Amino acid sequence: MNNSKTISALATGEGGAIAVIRVSGANSVTAVDSIFTGIKNKKLEDQKGFTVHYGFIKNSVGEVVDDVIVTLFKAPNSYTGEDMVEISCHASGYIKNEILRLLAVNGVDPAGAGEFTLRAFMNGKLDLSQAEAVADIIASESKVSHDLAVNQIRGGYSEEIGGLRAKLIELLSLLELELDFSEEDVEFADRRELKELVQKIEAKILSLKDSFALGNILKNGIPVAIVGNPNAGKSTLLNKLLNEDKALVSDIPGTTRDLIEDSVNINGVQCRFIDTAGIRETEDMLENMGIKRTFESIGKASVILLVCDIADADENILKVLNGMDLRDNQHTIVVLNKNDKYKNAVSANRITGLKKLTNLPVITVSAKYGIGIDELKQMILSSVGYKNVIDYSSNIIVTNSRHSQALSGAVVAIDRVLSGLDMELSGDLLAEDLRTALHYLSEITGDITSEDILKSIFANFCIGK
Amino acid sequence: MNNSKTISALATGEGGAIAVIRVSGANSVTAVDSIFTGIKNKKLEDQKGFTVHYGFIKNSVGEVVDDVIVTLFKAPNSYTGEDMVEISCHASGYIKNEILRLLAVNGVDPAGAGEFTLRAFMNGKLDLSQAEAVADIIASESKVSHDLAVNQIRGGYSEEIGGLRAKLIELLSLLELELDFSEEDVEFADRRELKELVQKIEAKILSLKDSFALGNILKNGIPVAIVGNPNAGKSTLLNKLLNEDKALVSDIPGTTRDLIEDSVNINGVQCRFIDTAGIRETEDMLENMGIKRTFESIGKASVILLVCDIADADENILKVLNGMDLRDNQHTIVVLNKNDKYKNAVSANRITGLKKLTNLPVITVSAKYGIGIDELKQMILSSVGYKNVIDYSSNIIVTNSRHSQALSGAVVAIDRVLSGLDMELSGDLLAEDLRTALHYLSEITGDITSEDILKSIFANFCIGK
Repeated sequence: MNNSKTISALATGEGGAIAVIRVSGANSVTAVDSIFTGIKNKKLEDQKGFTVHYGFIKNSVGEVVDDVIVTLFKAPNSYTGEDMVEISCHASGYIKNEILRLLAVNGVDPAGAGEFTLRAFMNGKLDLSQAEAVADIIASESKVSHDLAVNQIRGGYSEEIGGLRAKLIELLSLLELELDFSEEDVEFADRRELKELVQKIEAKILSLKDSFALGNILKNGIPVAIVGNPNAGKSTLLNKLLNEDKALVSDIPGTTRDLIEDSVNINGVQCRFIDTAGIRETEDMLENMGIKRTFESIGKASVILLVCDIADADENILKVLNGMDLRDNQHTIVVLNKNDKYKNAVSANRITGLKKLTNLPVITVSAKYGIGIDELKQMILSSVGYKNVIDYSSNIIVTNSRHSQALSGAVVAIDRVLSGLDMELSGDLLAEDLRTALHYLSEITGDITSEDILKSIFANFCIGK
Repeated sequence: MNNSKTISALATGEGGAIAVIRVSGANSVTAVDSIFTGIKNKKLEDQKGFTVHYGFIKNSVGEVVDDVIVTLFKAPNSYTGEDMVEISCHASGYIKNEILRLLAVNGVDPAGAGEFTLRAFMNGKLDLSQAEAVADIIASESKVSHDLAVNQIRGGYSEEIGGLRAKLIELLSLLELELDFSEEDVEFADRRELKELVQKIEAKILSLKDSFALGNILKNGIPVAIVGNPNAGKSTLLNKLLNEDKALVSDIPGTTRDLIEDSVNINGVQCRFIDTAGIRETEDMLENMGIKRTFESIGKASVILLVCDIADADENILKVLNGMDLRDNQHTIVVLNKNDKYKNAVSANRITGLKKLTNLPVITVSAKYGIGIDELKQMILSSVGYKNVIDYSSNIIVTNSRHSQALSGAVVAIDRVLSGLDMELSGDLLAEDLRTALHYLSEITGDITSEDILKSIFANFCIGK
């Protein structure tokens, strides 16, 4: 990782009216100066940061490539912490390529994926978890995923991890002090107190780690599979949930063969609904392929809506349930459809019975007439533990699987510290495990990090960020 | 068209790392002030134009939507000539929509297609032909189409039209002076001199009008149809021209059924090659459909490459030529392929004979070995009249079909003036036709324009420009 080079990349997307090219590094201002002619012939080099300049980008033979607005940022007051120039030009394919080519001719290298943010991290403008949140912010399409990322970038999360690290460092220094005086056999750290402190720290880390199940779902959206027997009204339900006619609906059982998938925002949370082929014994090869894929999509879903005709609910539901092999964090909701059709025929007793039988939440709806749909949406959110409002000031929610893994690693190490205390192990062994736990936490904020970790993190960024 | 409203739109494309939202109009600064918190709590209203400010966009309950860079432009020193604010934010779907929503809440309307450039025109920042060139610049993908648009926006073209208008106005005022003194029967404008002047003006307008054939091709790219008998090596030639394996190649005559189309940049000019099904009598229905489309694509092409096996050239070429019904501005090049195979068998005499027979440019190539391909590319460019370099300082090239039509209208009116002079018509009739010619020229630069014309021009712009 070479920060001495000056880099550039297109920072805006495809199409549009204007495009922005970013340049960062020690030579960024002189490089742009050599292709830019300001209207008053002022050199950019003589201008202050946070100033805007109108002028022309010209090629080596003096032809005008475009008229542009150039914004200057001087180190350390820029996104990367280095000197930076942003060139706002017309968004033509020719102009964008030509400006990048002219910059290259003047010694500016093309930026790698996430390289601007990597430099911001290297220059101490962001810690690693904040840098990761930048990518999350750009990817966020819903209010909740956006709020989680903003909260992470604003540092509440880093503070939390920082606080835990500080406590571990304090404990560690007590143990290390003991080691320094080991010949005198002094115990600076009272073992009972130590255990209590470590337990408190572990409880905090565990709660962070556990928040990932929800955090992951809120960040990436809730995958919801709609499954059930043929003709239970699954496609009608999907259309109602999406408020549009996405899925082909007919009275013929087996109409849906392809998986139909679309997203809808429920109270700020993205829900990805997957309509599946009805599950039944059939000779139709295409339909059987569809049923196979139904079971695959059940495997990927966090919430499974088990839809059946309210009239023949009990036996069918049990049949389908038997066919599913669910993981711990998968949640099933039984949706009794066609409520409108059999309104009076289905007794409340039967529904209560069904709840007992399956030990699952049960809801009656009419997909056709949109009855019970809002309640169902609410049930989906609460089944994954989302309660409509997150109080970000008191709740840190982990959304990053790398962090979740590091927290797991820390918990394992701290468990070893606790059992070591029970076994009355010596201070140096305890210190070793504490250091491991500390290492894991430091990886999250990037206080300790390897080039490999950095590479894998920033490879997921887009170029220009 | 209401310029009193403040408008906003996303100006950058889909995806990317950063996005830019443009706001223009009298309330743009106060509207942004109401959703923006600068880091030093400075109000944007108190800041000068051409300044940059870092801070946060917050929603109505004070939650941070994003940290942004805001650039201020004060009227008249902005693109539109109005107060403008550009908000550079993270390019997430949520953030972009939320900022636009918050602006709307604060009284900012969504901008229509091209509305920023329309305002620039209405406020006298650009004339109409320059405004049109903005859309051309953004759409340009090749150096030549880009240079044409830049030349148009830089005003050489407007000056040329302006000069012609000034001359027409001068003539008109002479004629009108006569009318004022009509009772005295004075001729201020010598009819012979008048005729000479009008002829000069017409010659200039005609040369502009004629430049459109080339201008249109350079702006939109040259459509080149590759046609010929089956197995003449058309697909091999296409692949060589494109430098890639786009078309399926086999020894079986009739391999190509679909039209295969792709573009390549030759000396800065975009050329759109269309490979077609070989023309022959066949029972195969699919192949016949392909042959039908071959003749359709010949109709759309500016250049037709008539490809045949060099060994059986004469008769076949004549056959195919007979099947084509070409327009004036379509150009055919005879390409004798498989030069490698019959190198010694084909005499120079035969090629000369062929040139005489067809009265067309003839070239021998080996598509398989890439021999003669560069020469063929050059022939394509020169067949449409492009000579590799355009001297923009002395050559104005019309690229806009609206302008071409207006120039044609002006020529018709001037023709009437000339025949009127020959028929010794009275000054008021001559003046009428001169006014018509003037009207057409004024439409090009927008000195005279109707709301309908403006609407149709700016409807073709993208939103945000």
